[in-house]
Amino acid sequence: MIKPAPKTRRAPKGEKRREALLDAALQVFSLEGYSGASVARVAAIAGISVAGLLHHFPSKISLLMGVLQRRDEVNQRIADEVRAEKSLSGLLGSLRAINRSNASAPGVVRAFTILNAENLLDTQPAWTWFQERYAGIQQRLHGQFADLVAMGEVRGDVDLAGLTEEILAMMDGLQIQWLRFPEQVDLVARFDTYIARVDAAIRFVPEP
Amino acid sequence: MIKPAPKTRRAPKGEKRREALLDAALQVFSLEGYSGASVARVAAIAGISVAGLLHHFPSKISLLMGVLQRRDEVNQRIADEVRAEKSLSGLLGSLRAINRSNASAPGVVRAFTILNAENLLDTQPAWTWFQERYAGIQQRLHGQFADLVAMGEVRGDVDLAGLTEEILAMMDGLQIQWLRFPEQVDLVARFDTYIARVDAAIRFVPEP
Repeated sequence: MIKPAPKTRRAPKGEKRREALLDAALQVFSLEGYSGASVARVAAIAGISVAGLLHHFPSKISLLMGVLQRRDEVNQRIADEVRAEKSLSGLLGSLRAINRSNASAPGVVRAFTILNAENLLDTQPAWTWFQERYAGIQQRLHGQFADLVAMGEVRGDVDLAGLTEEILAMMDGLQIQWLRFPEQVDLVARFDTYIARVDAAIRFVPEP
Repeated sequence: MIKPAPKTRRAPKGEKRREALLDAALQVFSLEGYSGASVARVAAIAGISVAGLLHHFPSKISLLMGVLQRRDEVNQRIADEVRAEKSLSGLLGSLRAINRSNASAPGVVRAFTILNAENLLDTQPAWTWFQERYAGIQQRLHGQFADLVAMGEVRGDVDLAGLTEEILAMMDGLQIQWLRFPEQVDLVARFDTYIARVDAAIRFVPEP
């Protein structure tokens, strides 16, 4: 038996179908979460048969992991952007940019808010993914703030681990209220106001 | 046919079973959310037959509403406590007390975090309950802060609606990280640090 040549990349058509299925899955998760989601509905929205869906994603869990993995790539781009900044204003500006980008995608934010809550227990399929996501963001942000302390931009007495927990909490918590009252809660203005207060509280100001 | 005398209160045994069922439902919701919860499992944990459960709660939705209604009573007690305070330190102290009480009940907090996320859409059974809950807390807090502005304790240029949104967001967001990393995230210390920063930012300090 002759071994087939290794595929270097997916066929364009298959890739397109995969993306359509992930878009449809994200939409269904944003409406019904994971536990309520139906694979048949994902297939119908993507305009693909259930058999076709199962060819790309053999189970509902693999569909979930596909959605999360694609989000990982977005996270990675964001992280690279944050890492590139070398000043307090730059770092806080990157966080504001991430929040602003979330404000343009309520469906994505809703899907991730629901999946996050559904996966608060270690028995759930994406528990590890969310744990690693939080730990990773925490660690990167903490490192960035530590660099700014070393550069003399951030005061040395700031609890950096606590600060990064607080910033992530504000992002997550504002999203919930914004999803509930989109006409009333200004996600961008709220976070920007909070970040301005953080800036004032942690920035090193030399004695006159 | 003789009309039975109106019951002025539930029989103690029936009341006890009802409470046992609500305790069991809260436990199941905290592990599987609403959509994943099984009524049979709730009955088994409470040590009551499914028929017995259906006598008290004819549907899964009525069980959910029972759990939320009981929470309403707790919220009401908390609201009364907050309302009784007549100083900025008193009001912020009440918020810290609520957070501290949450920190002693991770199961309750997890159940409500999951139910909150599951009910982010107006097609969900407890959507209205959560909308009214947020709107009610918002309104009460806003009124309290407005009184403190009138009393000269809080600066007049503070965006009070934004401030209350921010405080609620910090509570919700910290809970998510605390549920994920209970050994690492200090829910009480984190919120207290944040509240201290809010105090410094909004308290009216007369010019010397």
